[in-house]
Amino acid sequence: MVVTKTCKVDTRGQGDAHNLTNSIARHVKMSGIQAGTATIFIVGSTAIVTTIEFEPGAIADFNQVLEKLAPRHENYQHHLRWGDDNGSSHMRAALVGPSITVPFTNGLLVLGTWQQIVLVECDTRARQREIVVQLIGE
Amino acid sequence: MVVTKTCKVDTRGQGDAHNLTNSIARHVKMSGIQAGTATIFIVGSTAIVTTIEFEPGAIADFNQVLEKLAPRHENYQHHLRWGDDNGSSHMRAALVGPSITVPFTNGLLVLGTWQQIVLVECDTRARQREIVVQLIGE
Amino acid sequence: MVVTKTCKVDTRGQGDAHNLTNSIARHVKMSGIQAGTATIFIVGSTAIVTTIEFEPGAIADFNQVLEKLAPRHENYQHHLRWGDDNGSSHMRAALVGPSITVPFTNGLLVLGTWQQIVLVECDTRARQREIVVQLIGE
Repeated sequence: MVVTKTCKVDTRGQGDAHNLTNSIARHVKMSGIQAGTATIFIVGSTAIVTTIEFEPGAIADFNQVLEKLAPRHENYQHHLRWGDDNGSSHMRAALVGPSITVPFTNGLLVLGTWQQIVLVECDTRARQREIVVQLIGE
Repeated sequence: MVVTKTCKVDTRGQGDAHNLTNSIARHVKMSGIQAGTATIFIVGSTAIVTTIEFEPGAIADFNQVLEKLAPRHENYQHHLRWGDDNGSSHMRAALVGPSITVPFTNGLLVLGTWQQIVLVECDTRARQREIVVQLIGE
Repeated sequence: MVVTKTCKVDTRGQGDAHNLTNSIARHVKMSGIQAGTATIFIVGSTAIVTTIEFEPGAIADFNQVLEKLAPRHENYQHHLRWGDDNGSSHMRAALVGPSITVPFTNGLLVLGTWQQIVLVECDTRARQREIVVQLIGE
């Protein structure tokens, strides 16, 4: 059995983080599927989906690590292509990845207490984001 | 068909690595499912599941790369929240990710010869870890 | 329903990138499965599968970020093990990961316009690569 849902999120530019856990848990519950996997996939190449403790300190730290990995104000060859300024966004997204797959059993995601499913906007401007949540199971 | 299993692993703190490949291969074989995906997911936000050649040199190198990415003894804002000392653990786990999905066919994981499924503890203390292995297929 | 396909790609050593999107889209279409997930998994521990805008600038930038993360000419303990020179390859692959799971609906992958599924060779020599594409759905 396959159920496909989407979440829409309005972000405010690079570093803005959103906790998707409750929306996804709700999609799992409403699907009626008891056991399976939830694949959470961000459509677009300048944002991240991962798991992290969703508290302001950890999110700020994470953005600082990303800034070290792919500094915003650096000369990216990607900028020469389209006149874009979001080379850092593409780098961060490609490194960490656009998706995560989380198992669920008895209708509940198997997350730890401090483990949330989080979208981190990496683009340099506000975006409306579409996240596909696909549930496969029985 | 969906089968959910767990592995329990006792770790000895940051950098301790465990080869999960054999346990997961056994779960696949015993499930009777011939073709499908194995999603390996670590419950908790301070450990990593990835693939790497499981030999002491590569594991030591990997921990050194992680140390460079998110040094253990740095001032993380996360530490201010709970008095924790594991900001580096959260950063490493969020970057690399808590899960991996590996296809199998004819009851065998499609891994390369030098490609093992490995849990890397990132927390600063010993932990008992629960890894969910969910098999979906037919 | 489970369908397993493979793509073969000849690479020219570290940094060589290949756009797999069209091959995978074709596998999805030909499978006849309407909705489900495509798991793309590289067999071997020295290459990456991720999503990124497939244009030469972004690929060059990505390789530069990987070089900063795990420089090619550094002393890796892994080199002492087998006399290999590909410690950097293992590090890059373990960090970014060997696989990605992309949902599809109505027979179409839910990718963004500038979001391609890309193999990045990290090994220090040319390789023939086998990528497993496993489709699960209905």
